Amino acid sequence: MEKIGTYTFVAEPYLTDFRGKATLPMIGNYLIHAASAHAASRGFGFSDMSEQHTAWVLSRLAVEMQEYPAAGDKIVVNTWIDEVARLFTSRCFELCDEQGNVYGFARSIWAAIDKASRRPTVLDEARLRAYLSDRPCPIDRPGKILAAESESHTDGCLCSPVSYTVKYSDLDINGHLNSIKYIEHLLDLFGKEKFENQDIQRLEIAYQAEGRYGMDLSLYKKEISEDRFALAICHDGKSISRAMVVWK
Amino acid sequence: MEKIGTYTFVAEPYLTDFRGKATLPMIGNYLIHAASAHAASRGFGFSDMSEQHTAWVLSRLAVEMQEYPAAGDKIVVNTWIDEVARLFTSRCFELCDEQGNVYGFARSIWAAIDKASRRPTVLDEARLRAYLSDRPCPIDRPGKILAAESESHTDGCLCSPVSYTVKYSDLDINGHLNSIKYIEHLLDLFGKEKFENQDIQRLEIAYQAEGRYGMDLSLYKKEISEDRFALAICHDGKSISRAMVVWK
Repeated sequence: MEKIGTYTFVAEPYLTDFRGKATLPMIGNYLIHAASAHAASRGFGFSDMSEQHTAWVLSRLAVEMQEYPAAGDKIVVNTWIDEVARLFTSRCFELCDEQGNVYGFARSIWAAIDKASRRPTVLDEARLRAYLSDRPCPIDRPGKILAAESESHTDGCLCSPVSYTVKYSDLDINGHLNSIKYIEHLLDLFGKEKFENQDIQRLEIAYQAEGRYGMDLSLYKKEISEDRFALAICHDGKSISRAMVVWK
Repeated sequence: MEKIGTYTFVAEPYLTDFRGKATLPMIGNYLIHAASAHAASRGFGFSDMSEQHTAWVLSRLAVEMQEYPAAGDKIVVNTWIDEVARLFTSRCFELCDEQGNVYGFARSIWAAIDKASRRPTVLDEARLRAYLSDRPCPIDRPGKILAAESESHTDGCLCSPVSYTVKYSDLDINGHLNSIKYIEHLLDLFGKEKFENQDIQRLEIAYQAEGRYGMDLSLYKKEISEDRFALAICHDGKSISRAMVVWK
């Protein structure tokens, strides 16, 4: 079995944003699809994990887009594992068009949890290592993200957060806030005007705790420097996710 | 070219709800995908319409599910046109598994609008009629939907609506509230507990006006009789969409 998996998607016109471009949540779903399919055909997918009462959990994701696929465009996603540790594995992605022109790259960090205890569990390192690839992924690794919810804003003002309560449509198969929904709700902190004039160059998100049904969330956005925003989703004063968005 | 188009989907585990079942918004996307592909390969798809500065607009949708596909299940969607008129066309769907066991059926009514004026435009009846099929679709046509926003509740109480403001992620390629997002926001009026114990047997929705960015919406839910709910999305006191949900 090849180390690198290749999956093709179409930016369906009925799924794009108002600009006719693929959205980051859509792209996130392509990445999760590619990761799932790559893992499944190599014996460590959703069902394999389920049989061992474990599940993959996305811990961090960084996506950098040079250009966004437009309505009707084909998107070829290549994915491979570039690092395996005891509790985490790192997976890279390259997104390009049919001619091989690059749309962007992504990096992701995954952990496995025990489905009953929801605690991290050790990975089958030997199995994963068989697929390690040193194919280059020329974007920064996910790093530390500034706290958008802190009170020390550069401009001295504390922006008031947007409130949101977790609903039925937000839940994933594990009964928690879907990884892609975190991104959707955070991007909605930006106005349509911003998207009319600019593209997001880099999105980075860290999943710190699981959002549950009915949870009251506070969504924060703080401009760190021009076109560089720290975002956070908090519950009871503690962040359950932090993100950073850099606009082009 | 066959009159009936057949398209296969997979209820991807990362897209199902907390029960591990396909959601109605997911199913709605499959139907729109099947409709788009069926139309495109017969010369009246998204691009053909765009060239004539027109676009298809979903006017009504009714979905009846006997059983919901579970995570990993294949879903075969058959779609065909059963009626063509000057301004509207009616399209049916049958959803089944790979063995032909029926999951459910759907009916939809589509209009074409001029992209500039947003007004209805006459259809290319001759082209559409060539694909008319009399394959049976054993569910009721979309009909009149009671007003959930009216004040005369059977139990004498007026439920207070849920407020929602249209955001970036809600917009479709035409810059309006995405048809599937209407459904998502309406279903979120029901609690997780309802979905834990019951399935939706029939969802019917009428799209009356286009939701726009920043619009303040009021979402209403009114129980008409046991497990039969009228729903509505209103703006400025007028409904832009009405729906009905029947629980099994």
